[in-house]
Amino acid sequence: MSVSIGDVERAAERIAGYIRRTPVLEVAPGLFLKMEGMQHSGSFKARGGFNRALMAGELPEAGLIAASGGNHGLAVAHVARTLGVRAEIFVPTVSSPVKVAGLRALGAEVTQVGAVYAEAYEASAKRAGETGALDIHAYDQAEVVAGQGTVGLETLEQTGGVDTVLVAVGGGGLIAGIVAALDGRARVVAVEPELIPTLNRALEAGRPVKVGVSGVGADALGASQIGAISYDLTSAAGVRSVLVSDEAIVDARLELWRSYRIVAEHAGAAALAALRSGAYVPAPGERVAVIVCGANTDPGDLV
Amino acid sequence: MSVSIGDVERAAERIAGYIRRTPVLEVAPGLFLKMEGMQHSGSFKARGGFNRALMAGELPEAGLIAASGGNHGLAVAHVARTLGVRAEIFVPTVSSPVKVAGLRALGAEVTQVGAVYAEAYEASAKRAGETGALDIHAYDQAEVVAGQGTVGLETLEQTGGVDTVLVAVGGGGLIAGIVAALDGRARVVAVEPELIPTLNRALEAGRPVKVGVSGVGADALGASQIGAISYDLTSAAGVRSVLVSDEAIVDARLELWRSYRIVAEHAGAAALAALRSGAYVPAPGERVAVIVCGANTDPGDLV
Ligand SMILES: Cc1ncc(COP(=O)(O)O)c(C=O)c1O
Ligand SMILES: Cc1ncc(COP(=O)(O)O)c(C=O)c1O
Repeated sequence: MSVSIGDVERAAERIAGYIRRTPVLEVAPGLFLKMEGMQHSGSFKARGGFNRALMAGELPEAGLIAASGGNHGLAVAHVARTLGVRAEIFVPTVSSPVKVAGLRALGAEVTQVGAVYAEAYEASAKRAGETGALDIHAYDQAEVVAGQGTVGLETLEQTGGVDTVLVAVGGGGLIAGIVAALDGRARVVAVEPELIPTLNRALEAGRPVKVGVSGVGADALGASQIGAISYDLTSAAGVRSVLVSDEAIVDARLELWRSYRIVAEHAGAAALAALRSGAYVPAPGERVAVIVCGANTDPGDLV
Repeated sequence: MSVSIGDVERAAERIAGYIRRTPVLEVAPGLFLKMEGMQHSGSFKARGGFNRALMAGELPEAGLIAASGGNHGLAVAHVARTLGVRAEIFVPTVSSPVKVAGLRALGAEVTQVGAVYAEAYEASAKRAGETGALDIHAYDQAEVVAGQGTVGLETLEQTGGVDTVLVAVGGGGLIAGIVAALDGRARVVAVEPELIPTLNRALEAGRPVKVGVSGVGADALGASQIGAISYDLTSAAGVRSVLVSDEAIVDARLELWRSYRIVAEHAGAAALAALRSGAYVPAPGERVAVIVCGANTDPGDLV
């Protein structure tokens, strides 16, 4: 199963009335920040969620179901509320009470089960089989990937074209969608925390492999393995993965606030960290877009 | 002395290489937020500062001088650093150590003098006479007004045209510039805290009058009297002033964060408060731009 530029273009039309065309700020000549933290529910995840739900046609009585204590769960809860159906979200028992409360505030039914994400995911898949709810995967589903790709289409349009797009990677849904959307019109570079190198290790190994998950990006970039759709699309496109330290991510997040008054969560600052740390060095005159992909964070430590 | 649309257009060309074209987010069909808190130094004030300094031609040995412990002071310090000249900023002795430190971090020389802004201003004017530094007024100077007006030009371009622009008012430099920039192409509505109604009372009295200054907007909207240039331009244009409570401002600031992950200071949220509180009610289909004019705030109380 793959995702084409046509899938992304159709997703863009389908979800247009439901998502925000998030703004782009040119912070230096040819350097653009795509501010996707201003999206509904605070990250790009609402795009894939809406696309999956709207492609399903009439939604089941049981509504939507997903596993995620983080941005994906928030997005699915937002999608369900917007479309007027139920959302059931499975989160591991380690999820913070604040996140669970956030999901409940959006009207979702929350089930805490399993020690880690994978166990919560299994429980959600089992439950979906029982109830008939529409499962929305966090990254490894064609409809979700196509929805996330709309970030790439907008970025091209809003910048008037770039040479390179820097994208943070967890399970790889966002980068896969962007690769499909750009369809060779710009280079896509993956940025990953040194502590969660899902795509990096997969490209080395020649197939998806399990990696450790830790560090400041773990709450959003903490998939333990790159998704199959993402691996196929990114490896075929020759995507390169650069690694950034947690220190560089923390530093980039502070810089976004101090210089631009943009709030980002750590995952949202990872792509910028590649530029600031020198992990990615653009050529003179190269036009670069940085996807600032999420803002679900407590901004209290910014000043 | 007045300011014309031509003055604003020339200002836009002059400062283009120095300021950011801040983004616009359409949050509902026909409702636009102009995010001017992402401007250099965290508010629109850098626009007027650059225009005044660049119009002066060669800058004096003594550099730039201004009175303000707030956003105007930060902006003038930024302008001076960018242009490679000195900045001397006069602030009242009540200014917070954090603000003074912020100005010093930008390389400004800070003098604390006088109990209130008016006394600091007088001291700065006297000092400018002695040193020959170029004084940059916070609002009542044609070059400053023309610079602030560039916010209005961008807003028209980026939205494709609106019926109404909502603007917060302190000394009135921003609104005056926007009135000049729009030149009748959209209605401009002034939004003021009930506790600092500088334009509202002036329009009632038929001339600028002193008002009390207090409440959450006082650090940025706390001029005690509308400027002469602003009074002339806004009254001639038939600008209406609507008042908002501090409660409505606080509420709008929280809403900007919760719904859009936009950080605004209280003054920056005042214009949106007019919509949310019903102080300004658009007609069906009316296209409205809200100027979110500053983000120099501690975001720690947002979650
Ligand atoms: C803010 C943010 N950035 C990036 C990612 C990674 O997305 P993906 O798993 O599609 O690679 C996520 C996933 O939750 C996220 O929430
Ligand atoms: C954030 C912000 N908004 C609005 C204003 C009011 O501007 P003016 O004095 O030009 O009316 C100021 C002035 O300092 C400000 O800092």
